[in-house]
Parts: sequence; structure tokens; C-alpha cells
Amino acid sequence: MEQNKYSLVIVGFGGMGSYHVQLIEPSERLAVTGVYDVVDYRKELAAAKGFKTYDSLEAVLSDETVDVVLIATPNDVHKEIAIRALTAGKHVICEKPVTVDSADLRDILEVSKESDRVFMVHQNRRWDEDFLIIQDLIEKKKIGEVFHLESRVQGANGIPGDWRQLKAYGGGMLLDWGVHLLDQLLLLTGSRIDSVTAELSTILGTEVDDGFTSFIRFKDGLTAVIEVGTTNFIKLPRWYVKGTEGTAIIRDWDLSGEIVVNNPDVAKVEPKPIQAGQGLTKTMAPPSEESTLRLPIEKALSTKQSFYDNFVSVIEGKSEPLVKNEEVHRVLRLIETIFEAAEKRAVLKDLEL
Amino acid sequence: MEQNKYSLVIVGFGGMGSYHVQLIEPSERLAVTGVYDVVDYRKELAAAKGFKTYDSLEAVLSDETVDVVLIATPNDVHKEIAIRALTAGKHVICEKPVTVDSADLRDILEVSKESDRVFMVHQNRRWDEDFLIIQDLIEKKKIGEVFHLESRVQGANGIPGDWRQLKAYGGGMLLDWGVHLLDQLLLLTGSRIDSVTAELSTILGTEVDDGFTSFIRFKDGLTAVIEVGTTNFIKLPRWYVKGTEGTAIIRDWDLSGEIVVNNPDVAKVEPKPIQAGQGLTKTMAPPSEESTLRLPIEKALSTKQSFYDNFVSVIEGKSEPLVKNEEVHRVLRLIETIFEAAEKRAVLKDLEL
Repeated sequence: MEQNKYSLVIVGFGGMGSYHVQLIEPSERLAVTGVYDVVDYRKELAAAKGFKTYDSLEAVLSDETVDVVLIATPNDVHKEIAIRALTAGKHVICEKPVTVDSADLRDILEVSKESDRVFMVHQNRRWDEDFLIIQDLIEKKKIGEVFHLESRVQGANGIPGDWRQLKAYGGGMLLDWGVHLLDQLLLLTGSRIDSVTAELSTILGTEVDDGFTSFIRFKDGLTAVIEVGTTNFIKLPRWYVKGTEGTAIIRDWDLSGEIVVNNPDVAKVEPKPIQAGQGLTKTMAPPSEESTLRLPIEKALSTKQSFYDNFVSVIEGKSEPLVKNEEVHRVLRLIETIFEAAEKRAVLKDLEL
Repeated sequence: MEQNKYSLVIVGFGGMGSYHVQLIEPSERLAVTGVYDVVDYRKELAAAKGFKTYDSLEAVLSDETVDVVLIATPNDVHKEIAIRALTAGKHVICEKPVTVDSADLRDILEVSKESDRVFMVHQNRRWDEDFLIIQDLIEKKKIGEVFHLESRVQGANGIPGDWRQLKAYGGGMLLDWGVHLLDQLLLLTGSRIDSVTAELSTILGTEVDDGFTSFIRFKDGLTAVIEVGTTNFIKLPRWYVKGTEGTAIIRDWDLSGEIVVNNPDVAKVEPKPIQAGQGLTKTMAPPSEESTLRLPIEKALSTKQSFYDNFVSVIEGKSEPLVKNEEVHRVLRLIETIFEAAEKRAVLKDLEL
């Protein structure tokens, strides 16, 4: 059944829920029509913006004019709401992390299949320009074969207030931001994972992690450092990527950065030793000016459908989902592996991941 | 027996050996008088500079005018030369890494004790200004209690030619540069080591490591990332240090960097969300301008004796060595632990280190 515009109700009208209003605005095929939240003032806020408000999830689900339920609640109730919505015949968009436990996602997907409704997770950072640039750079071998990459987000503001500091609600930075960085990482290589080790940070004294560092090795030899920090007054670069022919760096959200590669027109020039502290070093001297090229970071031209356009296309059977549930499931399993590695303080190997 | 100037012979007149001539020049109590090298052209070079040259190590050791032997040969022969020189009644300065095997150092120290001659390892990077600044900053709690630090040297020139690419000679970057960074690290905390994990890099296809990353946790909770790379066309900062009140960064040998700390005069101001890629983030937003202070990196005022002045003082029984052999031994054991962790691909715990 094709229709002009699909009606979407947002369940959970906090920071992310209300941000979706902005995100969906440009879509010609999706319209936010209503809001449900357990908190009264958020419903009032929604009503003031002209949205229909509901008094219960049941009311949303029994409203036959509603096609899509968007779940932007705390993580612990994603599963229950998703299953109820799918069973009621609604298509579902769910915020990330979709569930804390990968087995819970399996349960949701089973219901999605049975009810023949689309379930798609809002892994919006697959559309981040910095990520698309790195993806493009790897694909086009702009720095040769990439053998190591580091992906970091760092801030000094601690864990954002509210439920994200609480374990029972699926809080913590590995679940909140880690899920994005790990999702991006797994899209950058076709290889399976060989080993994982990780350290959680608990400097702020919360019951959940306030950040983490994970070292991941893939079977094809690629290594990655994935790091989230909320106690960093100075940031390390967002992306640091090493290839056989050069290194690429993207410093921040403003996409500032550069690429330095071997100059193919110049034979390797022996570097001159430099004074470094109390010693001389040739090893750590910069390569001679003429033997490398310094290139700007170029925006990647992406023809990717938007998340919402793709979602409608999937409903209508015209496209494959750009966020595949199998991919999301693998990320959750990787997160579980990181939690386990950190808890056991071990390098976990022989993973089927 | 006190004398005006001690006569020093350099054994091994390659890059480091000849650099010592410059380093010893300002000393009022030490004079380079001779050189021995197995390679003829290096002896000619030394002779052209006015140094007496010797035809064998035996000739150096039987020359009664020689007080000090400085060993700057490849690492594999440090032990033999050191023991022979000490036995012959010479004081010894030895280049780093003193030995590849920590047990070999024990053997040397035994002979040093028996022969009552001074043996001191040239861990010159204890005098590096960047290190002294970090040491001072930690001591003075300029960023509160430091709980994490990252110390890196990175270049794009591969492993310096010659024996440093060969295992039999004690080559590889963990031994060459790692020994400095690890030596510095152990001076920054009084704590014992709790766990070690590491990855060696072998991108260049040499039989030794062309770099490494090690994650070290101390019993007091301090964590450290120590990294050496020779395939990095863009460098990450030389030092990145996190404390409870702020973060410090020293970018390079030029000591450029900064410190960002909580402003004690301003109550914490909630940051404003920023657009970051396809999402909004308050977590990764910069702290509000007024709530932090941005400070310059200040040079540390050090009154430390120079390496050579200290060496003479130790010979004369007037000072404790600034490079203690027990400290050097601990660094070697840490290097052995890093090699083991990398080989086993494990987090090594319960270390007596």
C-alpha cells in the first residue's frame, strides 16, 4: 500500500525525540503527527508545537492513522515498546543503542518478521561527513592500504545528566557514543574481528562508564583504537588513519585536517637528524619537504539516500535498508565483547564476530 | 682519588658515539681522549678529529691513562665490553638500552660492585625539557591529580638503517625509543605496575618491531599509553596528560602545547549543544568559555646536575647517581613484559614490577 505521507508518532520527547522533529521536517514522505511521553511537561511542549498528544502507548498503537512509531525513550524500554508497536502493525524507527543485550534485538527482529513490519535503528552517524570522508579515503586508497585507524570523541562535560548515568536505563558512554563509533568502524572493513581488549573509564564515579578505550584487531590485520572520553579538556583528533602511503587526520567536527602522503614523483630522501630534547634523532625527524605531499581533506560526494527517505523506500519494498539489522546486531555483540574484555581485563580472541 | 679531569674513551664511534663528543665538550671534569671502533673509517674519522685511536678493546683497557669507557656500540655487545672494562678497573658509561635481557644487566652490576667501579647508563632523555615540564606539572598538581597519560614519539622514516633493523643486535623500536619513554614513565609515579598489554607493529616487514603501543595500568589507578611509531606521516602529540582538573598537551619537540583547566572562580556552566555531524551533542561540546582557563606550557626550572657532572660526582662519592641501575633494571623488565604481552596477545597481570 503506497501512500503520500506516512504518519509518525514520537515516543519519548526528550533531547533526541524532539530533535527528530527537525530531522524529519524536510522529508516529503514522513510527517510527525503526534507525541507520547510519560512526562507531562514534555506532552505540553509537544502540544504547544501543534502535535497531537497521547495519554498512553496503547492509545498510540490503537490509532489506525499512525503508520510509524519512533522510539526515543531511555534504552531499557526500547524492546518492549518496539515489540508492542510491531505487533500492533506499526513500522518502527528506534534510537540507538537499540538494546543493551544483543539477544533482545533478536527477539525484536523475530516479531518484525512475523508482523511483516519494518524495524530500523537510527544509526544516524553513518551519514556524518567526517565518517564519509574516511570511508571514501579508504575505498579510494588515498593513503595506500589502511592498516590502522583511531576514532575518538572527547569532551570535558562528563556524562549528560538524566538516565544516561544509570545502569538500569542502559546508560554509560560505551552504549551512548561507543555504539556510533563501533558501528562506523565495522563499515570500514569487510574483515571479521580477531581480538578485542578494552578499558572502561570510571573517573567521574558514576555507576556506568564515563568513557572507554578499545583496541580491536581484525583478521585481515587492520587495527583500530576506539575511544570515548568525557573528562578531556583538550581533544585528540576525531580521526587518525594510517596507510602504507601516508596518514590522514580529521581534527574535529569542523572537518579540519589534512593528508600527508609519500610523493610518488620523488625517490625517498634520507631525512636530516633533528635536535629532540637532549638527543638527536633521524627516526623522529620529519620527512624531507620534497618527499611528501600535504593534501587537504576533501569532502566526499555521497549519493546516499537520507535515513528517512530510505526508511520509506524500505517500507515500500523499493530499497534495501541502509542500516541493516544484522549490522546493528554485530555492533551490539562487539559492545558486549568490549564490556567482557574490560571486566576480565583480558585480550579476547577466537571471536566469532 | 680525585683528579682534575677524567680521561674517557668512546667505544663505538657511530651516530651516538660521535654525538657524545659534543655532549661531553662542556664538561670541566671529563675529556674524550680516544676512540675505538671495529670499523676502520670511523677510526680515521676520530683520528682526523685529533683523538687517539686504539686497535683493540684490549689496548683501551690496558691503557692506564684511561679512566672511563663509554660504550656506544650495538646493544648485543654492551654486556661483554662493560664487564671487561669494569674488570680492567675502568668506570663505565653505557648507551641505552643497556642490555636486551635484564639478567645480563644483573651480571654487569655484580662485576661493577666487585670491581668497585661506577657503571651508569646514559638515559639522557631524563633531561629532556618536555619530560621535565610534565614531571613538574604532575608534582605541582597543575591539572589536579593525574590519572592518565599518553607519551608518544612518531616519525615516517622507518627504522634507522644499520643494526637497529636486526634482532641479533638488539634492534627494534621498543628497545631503541621505548626504553626512553618507559624510563620517563616510571619516574612519573611512585606506584608499582598492575597490568601491561601491548601490540608490536611490523608493517615495514623488518624482523624487529617498527613501533609499538603499550597500555600500562599502575596499582594506584594511573593508566598510560606509550607509543612509538615509524610509519606516521602526521604526529599525534608528544604528551597528552589528563588530570582531575584539566588536560595538558605538549605537541612536539618545540614544546608547543597548552593546559586547559577548570576555572576555580566559575561554577560549572552547562555547555550548549553543538551540531556534530548528523547529530547534536552536549557531551562532546566544548565547555563554556568562562568555565575553563587556557594556560601556556611553562618551562620547568630544573637544578638537576648534568649527566656527566653527576657521573663524575658519583665516581668521587659526592652524589647519588641520577640514573640508578635499579631503575634501569626495572625498565628492562617492563620491556620484557611488553614483549611477552605482545607475543601472547594478553593482558599480563599480577606483576611484581
